[in-house]
Amino acid sequence: MSATEQLLSRNENYAAAFDLAGLAAPPAMKVAIVTCMDARLDPTRLLGLKPGDAHVIRNAGGVVTDDVIRSLSISQRELGTREIMLVHHTGCGLMTFTNDEFAAARERDSGQRPEWSAGAFNDLEQDVRDSVRRVLECPFIPRKESVRGFVYEVETGLVREVK
Amino acid sequence: MSATEQLLSRNENYAAAFDLAGLAAPPAMKVAIVTCMDARLDPTRLLGLKPGDAHVIRNAGGVVTDDVIRSLSISQRELGTREIMLVHHTGCGLMTFTNDEFAAARERDSGQRPEWSAGAFNDLEQDVRDSVRRVLECPFIPRKESVRGFVYEVETGLVREVK
Repeated sequence: MSATEQLLSRNENYAAAFDLAGLAAPPAMKVAIVTCMDARLDPTRLLGLKPGDAHVIRNAGGVVTDDVIRSLSISQRELGTREIMLVHHTGCGLMTFTNDEFAAARERDSGQRPEWSAGAFNDLEQDVRDSVRRVLECPFIPRKESVRGFVYEVETGLVREVK
Repeated sequence: MSATEQLLSRNENYAAAFDLAGLAAPPAMKVAIVTCMDARLDPTRLLGLKPGDAHVIRNAGGVVTDDVIRSLSISQRELGTREIMLVHHTGCGLMTFTNDEFAAARERDSGQRPEWSAGAFNDLEQDVRDSVRRVLECPFIPRKESVRGFVYEVETGLVREVK
């Protein structure tokens, strides 16, 4: 059975016991979390999120791209969130290659060079600080009282703040 | 206490009982899931994901933007995933305004017009099909045997396929 079929089968069990039909769309805790797509990093478990608590935005690296800015702007302007947590993590795949290496490899295997950068970085804590700054400088994200950057340690399970 | 402080406090409990230090980075089920940031939609619960199972990519709407293409390309090329599930949902905030309305509102409150589109859509199932097509047409995502589109129903908990 494919992974997709297995997950759809698990969803049937979930739907059979579903009791969250009345949940409101605006996040109850008024917080948006930006983090990596990494399979080891589950915001539900590691932050103890309950259904309806928070917006969760995830991409490769948890880096603040234009698409993350778009999502955060919609989160605050249309759905009332006020706090932002940016969470990178140790052992991130984006520290294992450079943007040039990634683009050259894609050009080799597809004949085309991507127009986007892979978002690779060397210095984990500096990338968190850069991500925080990018949010703070954005005119489309109005609530800036609590924009905080963190590193999740895949070795310990701890989320520690980057100052 | 702020939402951020509450979540950090929950993380301390998580880290105190942490036993996943040996988890590998490549997703065990070799699948990447793209879905919305919506607080009512928790991939962990609704698909029964276990730690390490899958890459999870989330943005406003679960739409396939350049940043999602970047993440999927890294997921397949660097971390070995082979299947893709694209999951939109009923009651999505992106069906409640138009791109022009959103851009005009941001221009009013910030004095600047965003360069990006909000990604709004009218027809939920058509947007799923468009997202699937965008992945299928992308030269940087090599594995296309299982790229399937779905709608998660916030009213029933069910994930149903869009053909």
